[in-house]
Amino acid sequence: MSHPLLEKHRATLDGALNAIATRGYWSAYPEMPSPKLYGETAAEEGKQAFNALLGQRFVLDQPGQTGWHGGEASPYGIELGVSYPVCDPDALIAGGLMAMAGWQALGAAGRTGVCLEMLARLNQHSFALAHAVMMTTGQGWMMAFQAGAPHAQDRGLEAVAYAWREQSFVPTDALWEKPQGKNPPLQMQKHFEIVGRGIGLVIGCATFPTWNTYPGLFAALATGNAVIVKPHSNAILPAAMTVRILRAVLSEQGLDPNLVSLCVTPSRHITQALATHPAVKSVDFTGGNGFGQWLHTHARQAQVYAELAGVNNIVIDSTDQYKAMLGNLAFTLSLYSGQMCTTSQAIFVPAAGIHTEDGSKSYDEVCADLAKAVERFLGKPEVAHAVLGAIQSADTLARIEQANAGELGPVVLASVKLDNPDFPAAQVRTPVLLACDAADEARYMEERFGPISFIVKVADTAAGIALSERVVSQHGALTVGVYSTQPEVIDAMTAATWRSKVALSINLTGGVFVNQSAAYSDYHGTGGNPAANAAYANSAFVANRFVVVQRRRHV
Amino acid sequence: MSHPLLEKHRATLDGALNAIATRGYWSAYPEMPSPKLYGETAAEEGKQAFNALLGQRFVLDQPGQTGWHGGEASPYGIELGVSYPVCDPDALIAGGLMAMAGWQALGAAGRTGVCLEMLARLNQHSFALAHAVMMTTGQGWMMAFQAGAPHAQDRGLEAVAYAWREQSFVPTDALWEKPQGKNPPLQMQKHFEIVGRGIGLVIGCATFPTWNTYPGLFAALATGNAVIVKPHSNAILPAAMTVRILRAVLSEQGLDPNLVSLCVTPSRHITQALATHPAVKSVDFTGGNGFGQWLHTHARQAQVYAELAGVNNIVIDSTDQYKAMLGNLAFTLSLYSGQMCTTSQAIFVPAAGIHTEDGSKSYDEVCADLAKAVERFLGKPEVAHAVLGAIQSADTLARIEQANAGELGPVVLASVKLDNPDFPAAQVRTPVLLACDAADEARYMEERFGPISFIVKVADTAAGIALSERVVSQHGALTVGVYSTQPEVIDAMTAATWRSKVALSINLTGGVFVNQSAAYSDYHGTGGNPAANAAYANSAFVANRFVVVQRRRHV
Repeated sequence: MSHPLLEKHRATLDGALNAIATRGYWSAYPEMPSPKLYGETAAEEGKQAFNALLGQRFVLDQPGQTGWHGGEASPYGIELGVSYPVCDPDALIAGGLMAMAGWQALGAAGRTGVCLEMLARLNQHSFALAHAVMMTTGQGWMMAFQAGAPHAQDRGLEAVAYAWREQSFVPTDALWEKPQGKNPPLQMQKHFEIVGRGIGLVIGCATFPTWNTYPGLFAALATGNAVIVKPHSNAILPAAMTVRILRAVLSEQGLDPNLVSLCVTPSRHITQALATHPAVKSVDFTGGNGFGQWLHTHARQAQVYAELAGVNNIVIDSTDQYKAMLGNLAFTLSLYSGQMCTTSQAIFVPAAGIHTEDGSKSYDEVCADLAKAVERFLGKPEVAHAVLGAIQSADTLARIEQANAGELGPVVLASVKLDNPDFPAAQVRTPVLLACDAADEARYMEERFGPISFIVKVADTAAGIALSERVVSQHGALTVGVYSTQPEVIDAMTAATWRSKVALSINLTGGVFVNQSAAYSDYHGTGGNPAANAAYANSAFVANRFVVVQRRRHV
Repeated sequence: MSHPLLEKHRATLDGALNAIATRGYWSAYPEMPSPKLYGETAAEEGKQAFNALLGQRFVLDQPGQTGWHGGEASPYGIELGVSYPVCDPDALIAGGLMAMAGWQALGAAGRTGVCLEMLARLNQHSFALAHAVMMTTGQGWMMAFQAGAPHAQDRGLEAVAYAWREQSFVPTDALWEKPQGKNPPLQMQKHFEIVGRGIGLVIGCATFPTWNTYPGLFAALATGNAVIVKPHSNAILPAAMTVRILRAVLSEQGLDPNLVSLCVTPSRHITQALATHPAVKSVDFTGGNGFGQWLHTHARQAQVYAELAGVNNIVIDSTDQYKAMLGNLAFTLSLYSGQMCTTSQAIFVPAAGIHTEDGSKSYDEVCADLAKAVERFLGKPEVAHAVLGAIQSADTLARIEQANAGELGPVVLASVKLDNPDFPAAQVRTPVLLACDAADEARYMEERFGPISFIVKVADTAAGIALSERVVSQHGALTVGVYSTQPEVIDAMTAATWRSKVALSINLTGGVFVNQSAAYSDYHGTGGNPAANAAYANSAFVANRFVVVQRRRHV
């Protein structure tokens, strides 16, 4: 059981399979946008390819096209002006279902080979994709390149590797031979066919239009399903480019390109109709709780894999690297202006302060020192712009204003508007830090997406750990952290995360940050708390996307 | 990573792992109730052990006991008179949650070892369990022994093997080392903890109180969860014996026995409250569509693995072994009086008849010949009683009366009441066969549980295949069959089962029957049609019952 494209990319697949089994560092796609790695002309060509799309109709040749729609507003203030095909959703579904038979017939090896080729092709377009991600999301360039291209591709490959591992356990054929004492054995020839469940709908988010889309997209595809990508209305371009590349690979392979399509619609009703269509058997969604709960309630015919809101948090008990701790936190709070589903929102600090290598620091000192660390870190404009990027949505801007105005509690550090010389219309904001008492639960116990964080005064470390557990259990989180020099504190926090089911980072002071997760090694989400009912990636993320249909007969 | 009990049962586990990977014949537990295999005194001791339970209180020493409840009515008409502890569900949940920490700490290897020991211990009690299954369900003795004991144990072991395979992919620790060019690499020490989701509720059925309970029970246990078994009100004893054995093994191992408990309650509200309790994270259910849909709608905090009603069917196009085909079908329709979730209910026969090695047989001839084959097969009373067993429920008796009275269409073969000399009060019935036109959909398109089958006249083979596909897609099925000498017919039926997602048996004429599925080799259900949203067993049956909680720190 093989396929030429599987053989072509065998080393990549084997690397990924080894990586998910050992969970050490590994990556298939270089994260540095370096000419040595991507080619001397790649950067310039990618920029030109991106520029050539602006102001144009993005042709996809999909079935059932009825018009064009666009209207993305760049957080950097540039004019995008791209419009995309609007297609009858029923035509996209019919096209996907039609394409599935040939995709099924290709078998797991063939599907895996084609997916690997798709990922390799996406990697070749990394620069153009990075510009599209940057300009639609407001990410800084380096982040847009890394998270938008190679890291997203790694997450896609990770899903393909899990899908391959699960599918490769299912033998194509078996001879079943049951002894019958002195009589001849009963013999049955059996065949096992892997069949995708149906259409996979992948609903993207505004901030990570590739990183949060590729896992579901490739998990569904690799397991035999057709996929309709429904991007966020303000981050269509990276999804459209992805779909075009995937359709091109399918066509080259003599496969029906309608296996993968893009659904652009100005109407939420269309998305709802799609999500509840009987042919749609899985929905991958990243976004807010409102639509997430709607999906859980209404899209009952489908498996829903949803990443929703959460309240990520950190408990600070003590440290022997106070400055490094503050520096690490300052970076986390600043990166992409906190517009990450993994950014810490609540930092629990004991009322009596914390122990450090420089002696005790009171709660107020911790507040002041963290504020200074953020200011210092963002002191150089070129660093600030590279790290902060721009604010993606008007809602986030409004939340920042609300926080700055003191409506969410005493302001420890006010958000400042910065001017980006390269993008005069960009909405750039530094983080706002707020002081808060543990009792003010309404302030910090709902997600306030963006660069808004609360330094929450708790009775003591034990109370902080208990509060962290309760917040995660009730409101969800993708990440929590702890700082302590006391093993028993770390043990207590560890046990709390087992109960609340959230990933824990311990004493981060160096070049790894609580809001970052590395494909193949770090699970993104556990699937066990309200922030997400699935993880990137694990067996559960792929195993229920296909069924095995057997047939048997006497030999 | 090992455990003494894992080493003790290593050969059994390895056998099961090999079997699920190759899907050939394999079994860990002998299916013949033979003195050579089970010991010279096993049969007599098992009988005595069963008899000793009758008329007694079945003590389990569970927390929160408030009283006793029993009232099972044996389909064989004997007095059972066993009463079981009624316990406060909240106490059972609290006890299970309390026990989970130690169960988690044992690790996957330890949990797997303990589960293997539990299964070995259940196997030692096979005779007593078989009597309990026989007397509560009405199964014949041989079936009660095989399906109730070794085959159920095999299905449990199968789930343990899948659970082990998935858990063993997760490394306990990893060193993550990311190169940083000329600088020292970033190094993180990571730990990955497997954590059960919470309480697993396993709701049993009246006809297969062990076979349909053990997969969910052992899948949930092996993956780190506590389990509450809620048996059907008329088949408590086999579940109670199982729970007692499992609790004994836990106690012997110094583990908290409240990890596994029995919930007996006269109130449906208690079951509903349990199924929707926030601590209950999975529900395994076998039973009717009514409660199944209720679970899907209300038990939203849990993963629901449900096997519901279906309309199993067979398309007959042609055969070159007419008599053997009829004999095979006669056995299928008779076994346990059709009270299996896999029994064929609709047999689609072309209006123009079928081709056989003896020339054409008209639709009417096929009806008459199948009726004769059933009569002939059940002609000897000792065979009839061994195969038919007794009718489990008054509802099934009423359905048989309804069919016999012609209310469901013309009667091809009437059901006959037989007297079982060993059990004078047993309700024994032979199958009823009804003629039916394809257009009479209301008659055959809902499950009529019991020995009631329709020989449905279809326009032609193609119409029969299309009808089979529609019935399965809309109403579900665990099994379909086809008889044809034409490869293109078999291909068309195969393609139909891929779309409707149901297991297919082709030209069964020998000692394998469409209603039988063999652990490790045959998937029971696909999880892809309305009859069941999960299969026994596959990766999807286990992979989402646990989460992985990681922690990481600088080296």
